[in-house]
Amino acid sequence: MASVETSTAPPAPPSEGSPAPQPRSTRRAVGGALDERFELDPGFIYRVTAAVRGDLKDQVRAMVGELHYADMANLLERLNVADRRGVVDIMRDGFNPDVLPELSADVRDEVIDVLGFEDIALALRELDSDDAVYLAGKLEPDERAKVLARLPADNRALIEQGLAYGEHSAGRLMQREMVAVPNYWNVGETIDYLRSGRRTPEKFYVVFVVDPRHRPQGVVELHRILKAKRIERINDLVDPEIEVIPTDMDREEVAFLFRQRNLTAAPVVDKSGRLIGQITIDDVVDVIDEEASEDILKMAGVRSTEDSSLYRSIMTTAHSRFIWLMINLGTAFLASSVIGLFEDSIAKLSALAVLMPICASMGGNAGTQTLATVIRSLATRELNASNVFRVMWKEAFIGSINGLLFAAITGAFAYFWFDDILLGIVIGVAMITNMIAAGIAGMAIPLVLDKFGADPADSAVVFLTTVTDCVGFFTFLGLATWILL
Amino acid sequence: MASVETSTAPPAPPSEGSPAPQPRSTRRAVGGALDERFELDPGFIYRVTAAVRGDLKDQVRAMVGELHYADMANLLERLNVADRRGVVDIMRDGFNPDVLPELSADVRDEVIDVLGFEDIALALRELDSDDAVYLAGKLEPDERAKVLARLPADNRALIEQGLAYGEHSAGRLMQREMVAVPNYWNVGETIDYLRSGRRTPEKFYVVFVVDPRHRPQGVVELHRILKAKRIERINDLVDPEIEVIPTDMDREEVAFLFRQRNLTAAPVVDKSGRLIGQITIDDVVDVIDEEASEDILKMAGVRSTEDSSLYRSIMTTAHSRFIWLMINLGTAFLASSVIGLFEDSIAKLSALAVLMPICASMGGNAGTQTLATVIRSLATRELNASNVFRVMWKEAFIGSINGLLFAAITGAFAYFWFDDILLGIVIGVAMITNMIAAGIAGMAIPLVLDKFGADPADSAVVFLTTVTDCVGFFTFLGLATWILL
Repeated sequence: MASVETSTAPPAPPSEGSPAPQPRSTRRAVGGALDERFELDPGFIYRVTAAVRGDLKDQVRAMVGELHYADMANLLERLNVADRRGVVDIMRDGFNPDVLPELSADVRDEVIDVLGFEDIALALRELDSDDAVYLAGKLEPDERAKVLARLPADNRALIEQGLAYGEHSAGRLMQREMVAVPNYWNVGETIDYLRSGRRTPEKFYVVFVVDPRHRPQGVVELHRILKAKRIERINDLVDPEIEVIPTDMDREEVAFLFRQRNLTAAPVVDKSGRLIGQITIDDVVDVIDEEASEDILKMAGVRSTEDSSLYRSIMTTAHSRFIWLMINLGTAFLASSVIGLFEDSIAKLSALAVLMPICASMGGNAGTQTLATVIRSLATRELNASNVFRVMWKEAFIGSINGLLFAAITGAFAYFWFDDILLGIVIGVAMITNMIAAGIAGMAIPLVLDKFGADPADSAVVFLTTVTDCVGFFTFLGLATWILL
Repeated sequence: MASVETSTAPPAPPSEGSPAPQPRSTRRAVGGALDERFELDPGFIYRVTAAVRGDLKDQVRAMVGELHYADMANLLERLNVADRRGVVDIMRDGFNPDVLPELSADVRDEVIDVLGFEDIALALRELDSDDAVYLAGKLEPDERAKVLARLPADNRALIEQGLAYGEHSAGRLMQREMVAVPNYWNVGETIDYLRSGRRTPEKFYVVFVVDPRHRPQGVVELHRILKAKRIERINDLVDPEIEVIPTDMDREEVAFLFRQRNLTAAPVVDKSGRLIGQITIDDVVDVIDEEASEDILKMAGVRSTEDSSLYRSIMTTAHSRFIWLMINLGTAFLASSVIGLFEDSIAKLSALAVLMPICASMGGNAGTQTLATVIRSLATRELNASNVFRVMWKEAFIGSINGLLFAAITGAFAYFWFDDILLGIVIGVAMITNMIAAGIAGMAIPLVLDKFGADPADSAVVFLTTVTDCVGFFTFLGLATWILL
């Protein structure tokens, strides 16, 4: 562990030198736009709204011109349609293109509509290549054609190349801007090259070292260059254990690799192994976040992060949720038809109707616990072929233990409630059966979905509750009919 | 957009210089340890197991000695207890301390047990301060005391300071190693200082510029230093819009700030505003991942990521799930008691028992869709005071639309099934009521939990299904009793 004392520069002499500039926190800079949680202040939004409605253009510019692009995106999302159009129109000339990729899909469509193709084309030219490809990918095909037609040929070619890669591929994620130097250079040559300026991108974390055929040989983190002497060979600084990313690697795979290897940036190569771009950790952060969001939403029956947008129209949201609910209605009727088999039993002993949801509900909940654990373990790669049988056995065992405990508890409750020892035994046996079934189904369903290339989070809950409802109702009502009646 | 051509060094001359080293991918380096998805190969695990059991120490060292620490952690997790102890014992001398923070809690406890206090103390000295604090925080208090007692005073003091910060605070997350230079230095002085070597940490992304009282004035990304001339003042390179992180900021807040501002590293300051450490983006990646995992698991009733560990013992896992299921059993009985109110009605018309789960189930599913959307929106800060009323209204409206549609569909089904038009109308009305209730509850429950400082994902589903079950059963059976009987 490097000691703290030694990692800091010697204490500064009394400040006779140049007066230090005060650090300018965004919060202070824009006059109370953000609260202490870095969120837009409702009072600020109100003042912006008032200025837009009063058509006080200078005031709007003064208020929102200094906002960080992410805050500007938030502001636009919070305004209603008319005010949003107003702000975009007023800010048209100084509109920061970095705002666009930050917007949620529906708000972005609107903003693009106000800005028009000319301004969007300008934005695409100013953005980093990965952001430009992302944004172009979000345009409707006809809009995209019109925007791309307004770009210089080289810009257009780059974006079209980017769009040719699959939506969830490394090729889409990569940026083309990077620094690559030949492996025979030394540190001095590299620094001089970087200082020469014209050829270097605006921002970079690493320097890639390439062989004469432009294949990546290694990655050099910038701090290694800064710490090295000018005469040292760049080749001696590389970390040779590089992971080279092909353009068609899935972005989840990319995220896994970055986390697993604690990477800052990784080279992307084409089919012949030539270095054509890089992926950096900040892109991966977005992927991790989005994939985790997708899992949680899909488990709950919201089909995508775009469908979960708060800014999507009511009809679109209602429609996207309808499909999932329709599937659920099907399984609910299936469960009802299982109950229907025992209608006569229920007519004879109505206590069965009172108790029957308990087994089904407990099975569903126990199964969901297993399901969520398995889905997350698959996502983080904790679970795989080498330990799947051990984990499956474990889940069945947990189901049995908790099944036994809840059989005893529920059986006792049912006995005291309806004063019928046999009814208690019946619900107890049904409970154990369903809890074990829930453990096995909660484990098996996401694994089977994963095996067949489907997303394990997708629809897993429908399948699970179909199993637990049907098994729960059937064992309870079936046993009751057999033993009690 | 920087053009691709210009961001690359001029093509290299024929390689008459030094022969280029071949890049060494981890996959190839360790002889088939990893498959093409960067996962441990089952065959490799098998070979390691065989070597351990045969006590072939050199073979084990040859196989696992070259593994990346993250892969080593995975390997240890995949082995059974005896084999794991065997590997750790054989590798004791060359044991990479970076493996320890990567292990899941229960496996780590075991490994620590095999290594013993002396080796753990050594590991803590070698790790970066943030990893050392993390690891020390995971030790049992008595173990920790014994390990810390074996450390030099300055190491011990740093770790104890780190542990004094709250578990989810920025203070815990920060590392003490960093580079800070006085604001009157120029680029040349900074580079010379970094080259002098002894004082600089092993790895860093940015240089912090501090005033004479050691308060951060700005952040300089390394590429800016590399691109600048030696005589340029470091102060002219800083991005003055820094966000300064106090040690007690919540780590979720920190993650939000990094994402929102696309930060690479941020300065952490003590109460007097002095720079005492930094947080870097790779730490934030872990936080984002862990928080998302927690949300998905908590929604499903698994209380923490540690409880979801596949390596936790069966009894511990069963016990941690038991608590949640017990709460669920309570709500299931509550729902049953609602049904119990209408036992006479069911005895008269057993079709009610067959149909009654449908409304409850649909309400639960619709509510969960809303719930997941709201929980994610709160986590990503899309939802806040400025738009909460609009979103709430929207959810109620979506509930009404889908409620109407499913009322019609379900009513028609019920009518055809039981040939009773009134029964169809009753279930239809109950359906609309429950779907609207589900929308409101799915929205309100996480918001109320959040308002009172609880985690909105925690227990939200229990509350929701309690509402949808009770409302579903009560409206359906109540209306049926009133209208049909």
